[in-house]
Amino acid sequence: MNGAESLVRTLLAGNVNVCFTNPGTSEMHFVAALDQVPGMRSVLCLFEGGATGAADGYYRMKGRPASTLLHLGPGLANGIANLHNAKKAGSGVVNIVGEHATYHIELDAPLTADIEGLARPVSHWVKTSNSSKDIAKHGAEAIAAAMVPPGQIATLILPGDTAWNEGAGIADIPEFEQRSSVDSNKVDRAAKVLKEGSNTLLLLGGAALREENLVLAGKIAAKTGCALLTEWSNARLDRGAGRIEVNRIPYVVEKSLDVLKGYDKIVLMGAKAPVAFFAYPNKPSILTQDGCQFFEVAGDSDDIASALAGLVDAVGAEQTEPKGVVKPFRPDVPDGPIDPGSIASVIGALLPENAVVVDESVTTGREFFPLTAGAAPHAWLNNRGGSIGYGLPVATGAAIACPGQKIVALEGDGSAMYTVQSLWTIAREQLDVTIMVFSNRSYKILRGELTNVGVQNPGPRAVDMLSLNRPDLDWVKMAAGMGVDGCKVKDAKQLAKAFESGLATDTPYLIEVEM
Amino acid sequence: MNGAESLVRTLLAGNVNVCFTNPGTSEMHFVAALDQVPGMRSVLCLFEGGATGAADGYYRMKGRPASTLLHLGPGLANGIANLHNAKKAGSGVVNIVGEHATYHIELDAPLTADIEGLARPVSHWVKTSNSSKDIAKHGAEAIAAAMVPPGQIATLILPGDTAWNEGAGIADIPEFEQRSSVDSNKVDRAAKVLKEGSNTLLLLGGAALREENLVLAGKIAAKTGCALLTEWSNARLDRGAGRIEVNRIPYVVEKSLDVLKGYDKIVLMGAKAPVAFFAYPNKPSILTQDGCQFFEVAGDSDDIASALAGLVDAVGAEQTEPKGVVKPFRPDVPDGPIDPGSIASVIGALLPENAVVVDESVTTGREFFPLTAGAAPHAWLNNRGGSIGYGLPVATGAAIACPGQKIVALEGDGSAMYTVQSLWTIAREQLDVTIMVFSNRSYKILRGELTNVGVQNPGPRAVDMLSLNRPDLDWVKMAAGMGVDGCKVKDAKQLAKAFESGLATDTPYLIEVEM
Repeated sequence: MNGAESLVRTLLAGNVNVCFTNPGTSEMHFVAALDQVPGMRSVLCLFEGGATGAADGYYRMKGRPASTLLHLGPGLANGIANLHNAKKAGSGVVNIVGEHATYHIELDAPLTADIEGLARPVSHWVKTSNSSKDIAKHGAEAIAAAMVPPGQIATLILPGDTAWNEGAGIADIPEFEQRSSVDSNKVDRAAKVLKEGSNTLLLLGGAALREENLVLAGKIAAKTGCALLTEWSNARLDRGAGRIEVNRIPYVVEKSLDVLKGYDKIVLMGAKAPVAFFAYPNKPSILTQDGCQFFEVAGDSDDIASALAGLVDAVGAEQTEPKGVVKPFRPDVPDGPIDPGSIASVIGALLPENAVVVDESVTTGREFFPLTAGAAPHAWLNNRGGSIGYGLPVATGAAIACPGQKIVALEGDGSAMYTVQSLWTIAREQLDVTIMVFSNRSYKILRGELTNVGVQNPGPRAVDMLSLNRPDLDWVKMAAGMGVDGCKVKDAKQLAKAFESGLATDTPYLIEVEM
Repeated sequence: MNGAESLVRTLLAGNVNVCFTNPGTSEMHFVAALDQVPGMRSVLCLFEGGATGAADGYYRMKGRPASTLLHLGPGLANGIANLHNAKKAGSGVVNIVGEHATYHIELDAPLTADIEGLARPVSHWVKTSNSSKDIAKHGAEAIAAAMVPPGQIATLILPGDTAWNEGAGIADIPEFEQRSSVDSNKVDRAAKVLKEGSNTLLLLGGAALREENLVLAGKIAAKTGCALLTEWSNARLDRGAGRIEVNRIPYVVEKSLDVLKGYDKIVLMGAKAPVAFFAYPNKPSILTQDGCQFFEVAGDSDDIASALAGLVDAVGAEQTEPKGVVKPFRPDVPDGPIDPGSIASVIGALLPENAVVVDESVTTGREFFPLTAGAAPHAWLNNRGGSIGYGLPVATGAAIACPGQKIVALEGDGSAMYTVQSLWTIAREQLDVTIMVFSNRSYKILRGELTNVGVQNPGPRAVDMLSLNRPDLDWVKMAAGMGVDGCKVKDAKQLAKAFESGLATDTPYLIEVEM
């Protein structure tokens, strides 16, 4: 078997059996190996940001890495923004990046680029494999690197001759780090703080946001009276009826300051000390009050489940009923115009059990939580890295990770345009994804940000740079052009009807929500 | 004036008066400055690859840099692939990349990334400006860096507080390198070779491909009997009736070997020694015969015009009529099916004077040259870096650089999808761009490459990764969704009619050419 085949077989042996790909000439042996070796689900993406974002979504829902197959430096470059998001989300990804044959690189052909240099800023692990005898071993190392908790970006660069020369068979996956145990002193100290303090917040992130861990957090809150919150963006938050309600620190600086001003002690469980998404003139970047004390129990690579169990024990809450269990609540399907409230009502009313909500709704969705809290149990995924264009790719990967579950993608129009090519992949794979595009025909968030940085009356040239009108985007036509059915809605009743239609089938559906 | 305004004013003072932009929060002061300072044409792109590619196209036609405005590391990352292409094309670009305020970076907010690390592989010059008092000076340095021949990528990173704090006024553009004079010994040696050799090739690149310089090359060819060729990809080649005909070294290895096997001496004038685009098992990467001697007269940053004039002088060709002057030739508009020959005939028959052809036609367009050689004088632009998705953005920039000239974009369907968002910018700016999308519903080049790497009978999984069917893309619908009119054609007559319609207006038009 050649190097490419030894790599594909090693990936499969390491349980990496999905490949999101946009291959080129230098990757042809890898593509050929997909035919020789059954078992790798290969998903073609028409732009690499679709591939890397899909690997992110896959990991968030499946808990193990997918691979990507990318074409030299520029192919990797097109995937960097969503690798940035995946890295910030703690998702494990195994990137395979083709490279010229080792002897061809020095000739400086058109596609020659510094692939390692491009990979390093978004990768925890980078290696160029220069021998077909080693490529399987390096592939195994990449899998191990990607599996390091909470999940890491591993980038393996594969020169053409390393793929086509004779390989050395399947390699074993080396041992890799597991989640670190948490120092019991940290648990005890946090327990003491929680028991004493009246203005204490338990800030949850990462694995703390899974259903079973939230129950532990709810017990601690019930026993000690502490508040529970999450960061603004979460890789995956389990929520809905019967689960523990936990809200996010708001995005807007003034609102987050207001929410956080009451706390003088914050226990960190998989989360970081809250900071502003952006800096603004004359506003603080640190969102907590001066003198607020932090007590970190677990970082996002630590054994958060055990840390929470230990904390339950240390505060004596084993037998305590958790606080914040959500009662089922379905809002009425509203009449009237489209606005954030009516959209949230429609989602809350109709969201099916085990749905996965991929939220890239930006301004429109800031207030979706209250009205969707009591819907059937579901997972809610945010953009951890802030690079827009994460939503449709992550929805793609989540759908492939979770057959039988409904995926709901909530998209700002500006964001959805970034990786719009994902619609085609969703259509080709006939994924069960229902997409709402909130068409306000502007980068609305930036209109607010212009005010935030001190510009009160923007002139026409500035406004023009933040507007998606002239011409208006027609999402139904674009979706149809890529094989996705859809419709446009102009009021809440139409939205509810369209959402029901989308959910009723197990194929893709796009709803353009005119704002 | 604040730092942002001092930077905008410095850019304008340095004759950088176009900005291709996709701004975010960290760039809001720059956006606000666009209102305060008239004179900067700001063009919104819905994806950053559209912005960087447009700057490439602008430079190729205008000969001076445009600026881009990009949003932090991920915004830059989305533009890297087309910066790679621009770098390989020798295009000058001034990138302005927003960054968090200097004091905010250490807080590791979601969008924090290693911007310099991402910029370096595709930039000749990178600087993070940490003071609003210095930003204008650094902007001036960036312009000077971008102007270094033949054109360079300069990336200036602009932290938020550097933009919003008080600036220091407009800065002067420093002196920058001009094209280097060519050593007269090199000219004399090449003249000797050309006069003696019977199997000598004068290989032309860069500035040698401009109309007036091609005349000099034609004189040398007439006098010495040398052959003239260009590289496979050229940043800009002036061609058409009345100009000097010069063909490209073919892309396919066997064909290029065949073309080059007759030459034992090659004089390089702005071009590099020919190498294969990719390596293949059992095929050479170096395309010239063993023992072929190279004589470099000028690199692409040298004073090629003077070098050619000197060479004309040294071979005694001042009074010689140039060889290869093309007679006007318009093929008949063909009947019958769509194929590369009939497409070339339609283009050759109808291409208007001073058209700019942006060629990303990949497999379909490999044989377009003979039938378009005698069309009205035009410029032909290729992808120098090989990263697909260059065409629509470069067409955007070329159209903005050349009001009054017709831009014709020839696009493979797979390539056009990469930066499809550019259609919206073309619509918004109402650019005079006529686009042909060659819809063969596959990465057809890769089907050939699979054979080239030794896979004779690809199986269904491999073929599936190279096919754009299931579902077929509908380009007319996608274009309509972004505000561009279009039609679909199925035979050569329909194509000719559609091309005439597109050229008849001065607004965008897309033709889906069903292959």
